[in-house]
Amino acid sequence: MIAPNVLKKIREIVASDHYHDSLEHRIAYSYDGTPLISQLPDAVVLPRSVEDVSALLKFANEERFGVVPRGSGSGLSGGSIPGENTIVLVFTGWNRILEIDRANMTMWVEPGVITSQVHKAAEESGLFYPPDPGSMNICTLGGNVAENAGGLRGLKYGVTKNYVMGMEVVLPTGDVPFSGGKSMKDVAGYSLKDWLIGSEGTLGVFTRILLKLVPPPQEARTLAAYYNSVGDAAETVSAIIAAHVVPATLEFLDNTTIRCVEEYANLGLPVTAGAMLLIEVDGRKEEVAEDSIQVREIAESHKAKQVLVSKTVLEADRLKAARRSAFAALARLRPTTILEDVTVPRSEVAVMVESIRRSAAKHGLTIGTFGHAGDGNLHPTCLIDERDTDEVSRAENAFEEIFREAIRLGGTITGEHGVGLAKKKFLPLQVGNAGIEMMRKIKESLDPNDVLNPGKIISTKPRCEGILPRTRDQIQRFEGAYI
Amino acid sequence: MIAPNVLKKIREIVASDHYHDSLEHRIAYSYDGTPLISQLPDAVVLPRSVEDVSALLKFANEERFGVVPRGSGSGLSGGSIPGENTIVLVFTGWNRILEIDRANMTMWVEPGVITSQVHKAAEESGLFYPPDPGSMNICTLGGNVAENAGGLRGLKYGVTKNYVMGMEVVLPTGDVPFSGGKSMKDVAGYSLKDWLIGSEGTLGVFTRILLKLVPPPQEARTLAAYYNSVGDAAETVSAIIAAHVVPATLEFLDNTTIRCVEEYANLGLPVTAGAMLLIEVDGRKEEVAEDSIQVREIAESHKAKQVLVSKTVLEADRLKAARRSAFAALARLRPTTILEDVTVPRSEVAVMVESIRRSAAKHGLTIGTFGHAGDGNLHPTCLIDERDTDEVSRAENAFEEIFREAIRLGGTITGEHGVGLAKKKFLPLQVGNAGIEMMRKIKESLDPNDVLNPGKIISTKPRCEGILPRTRDQIQRFEGAYI
Repeated sequence: MIAPNVLKKIREIVASDHYHDSLEHRIAYSYDGTPLISQLPDAVVLPRSVEDVSALLKFANEERFGVVPRGSGSGLSGGSIPGENTIVLVFTGWNRILEIDRANMTMWVEPGVITSQVHKAAEESGLFYPPDPGSMNICTLGGNVAENAGGLRGLKYGVTKNYVMGMEVVLPTGDVPFSGGKSMKDVAGYSLKDWLIGSEGTLGVFTRILLKLVPPPQEARTLAAYYNSVGDAAETVSAIIAAHVVPATLEFLDNTTIRCVEEYANLGLPVTAGAMLLIEVDGRKEEVAEDSIQVREIAESHKAKQVLVSKTVLEADRLKAARRSAFAALARLRPTTILEDVTVPRSEVAVMVESIRRSAAKHGLTIGTFGHAGDGNLHPTCLIDERDTDEVSRAENAFEEIFREAIRLGGTITGEHGVGLAKKKFLPLQVGNAGIEMMRKIKESLDPNDVLNPGKIISTKPRCEGILPRTRDQIQRFEGAYI
Repeated sequence: MIAPNVLKKIREIVASDHYHDSLEHRIAYSYDGTPLISQLPDAVVLPRSVEDVSALLKFANEERFGVVPRGSGSGLSGGSIPGENTIVLVFTGWNRILEIDRANMTMWVEPGVITSQVHKAAEESGLFYPPDPGSMNICTLGGNVAENAGGLRGLKYGVTKNYVMGMEVVLPTGDVPFSGGKSMKDVAGYSLKDWLIGSEGTLGVFTRILLKLVPPPQEARTLAAYYNSVGDAAETVSAIIAAHVVPATLEFLDNTTIRCVEEYANLGLPVTAGAMLLIEVDGRKEEVAEDSIQVREIAESHKAKQVLVSKTVLEADRLKAARRSAFAALARLRPTTILEDVTVPRSEVAVMVESIRRSAAKHGLTIGTFGHAGDGNLHPTCLIDERDTDEVSRAENAFEEIFREAIRLGGTITGEHGVGLAKKKFLPLQVGNAGIEMMRKIKESLDPNDVLNPGKIISTKPRCEGILPRTRDQIQRFEGAYI
């Protein structure tokens, strides 16, 4: 616990109505979107200004407590879960769009703005902000940048880092440099902003973010294709890419996911299909017309049983609903949903999907797999009851196999969710000791007292290990806290 | 000087035929494409393998000498110029294309491969590698990655960092991590590759590079537009962007450059024009047709005196020759060519060009300005005689004004050439003390003995300050070394 006199000083820094340490507040910020792990912070702070953030970090260095920045807490790797001796900094109130510059096609935002609000504001200015993480209606831009969030449009448009031009950032020491700007090219020294994007809140706290916008596509069309086998769907993906068609989205759903979605949303999906592809092509009018014909032909020549092409926006929305509701549909089955995001080179998607299916069968688990097939980014989603310690343990074993297989195929343990707490154990398998050592040196040089989001990605201090699997016992203890 | 016994050991590490310390060899590697600065290394080494590079860096840490990696040496910021007590590592022999993977659209290369060879190999596989720095026929990929090189196609296609998916790298300590891979998305820990791209050879030596390729555009068309005033040309640029046309290239030449090019290449350019825009649109057939009509209309409605549209590839090449020969044409005028690359937000191009013109007049200098107007990336090119110390000093004063103006306009002192030795002095103006401090901490943490490309970007040790302005005296001394 942080000492009471230290907490008192923290309260003084931000003014008392921006400081909370009631159990209710602490519980509300003890978890994020990640299942199985949670931990109580010592206090919850709503900073009012850059100066507050800087002062808190300077004080954290003096008193050696941890500071965990967070937005909506929709993360899926435990990146915003507090550790011992930490306070949480909440940025959801920093939700303003500060400027839209049409001439330079940029937008200044505060880190707590909701991603779909950025989409809306860009659209209203006749522009387009492409990154669209699955959680875009609730997640915050600061979190997107911290995790380098991906989304459905990654194949054609890239991920968050491709749209961050600059930032004001508070470093662990409390310094406030500014990095980047509205220039399209900038190679003046190490690119601090590129170092901070994807650093999962461990190297700096973003206080303002400059986004790049692009001209919107003129049109879009959505296609759905159903297959008997995953292999046929995967071959369609390869053939689309080989034909040099670059769809905006190229999504995959396996049979388990299709069945759950149909039961949940009654969209009329064929529940016996082994796999489904959902493809959106966008761009100029002619491009969309040409590409949708070509995609349809490729799908049909790769044994698609049925191909549907949207004729209206309403029809497109109906088709896309299948993919957008996949997580919610699967999550209904069991109390606990573990959504993973292994990613492999595009050519290995079929091998990876089959390997996930084998691991699920071997460990007696239900795993539905959907995801961004065009990027090789898959979301095997395991449905368990976290109170069943045996099932939790089987799920952990299955995912270890899945992560090892992804690495063997030249892929990664995480394509868009980050390492956080949940995947620390597996990171050395992928990046090796030299990689971990380099990350550790960088963290230590910028945050020598390990005050900023301690215990994440690479553990530098045991006190912040922070993973608390919620076993039945622990949950009872946790629930007891409400009484 | 590095002690003779240490040089002997270096020679033993790489075998004697890969080691040179004759004055001829040392002079050949004492400079790069940057005017006014040069310095002799103590030895020149051609490493044979990753193991050689690693062993040399480990030994450099033991004996505290500097190691300066380089390719063709076409850099324009002094990034590959040796310092005192340094050896140069030459990678031009590492020029193989190791793999082209069509399914995943990737290419593995060695760092010494020439950029235009990458273009050619991609094209032969039906694919496209967009980054096209002006020096693409002589520069090496390793240097492109180290400097995060840009090029003419930056506006539509981005810069080198957008096309680097992974790398094998030797760190200053001699460790050899691998970062990235063929997955389109990867957020497993800090992205080492993104930290190393643009680090100008100060944080790691690339030994293999994995490039991303894309489908090639189906067609391209080139337009040239001539104007009375720079302002009209700049307004055309803004109007093209506002119309959501994204040309592959959108190049600008001022009157000084037009006159020099015409004198040099006899292309029939109107030498009285105040400015010229050179625009290439590419993509689908219909897109190219639509965009070229729209660009033509926009140019004409913004007071273009004449607009030419290429009908054949030959005509397009003729138009593009004006831009491609700008540097050579200007360089003929005087003995010394200082090619700079200030970059500003696109909306500030006209203001910046006018400001450059004023600084040239004020200091009695000839400065021709051309560059990537669509990116706001300008190349004011100052023509002097480096033996005239007064003229050198006036040029330095003019560029200081130009850099300060770029920063004032929200721009950068370098859009694509890097800081190296040449712009160290100005970096703090742009990134501030907190920015410099962060860069310094990172350099010190990864390279505690300052062995890798010492003295560049941020000076960590005075011994490697390394800027030797070639005054008349120094040149005489330098030339004396030949005798």
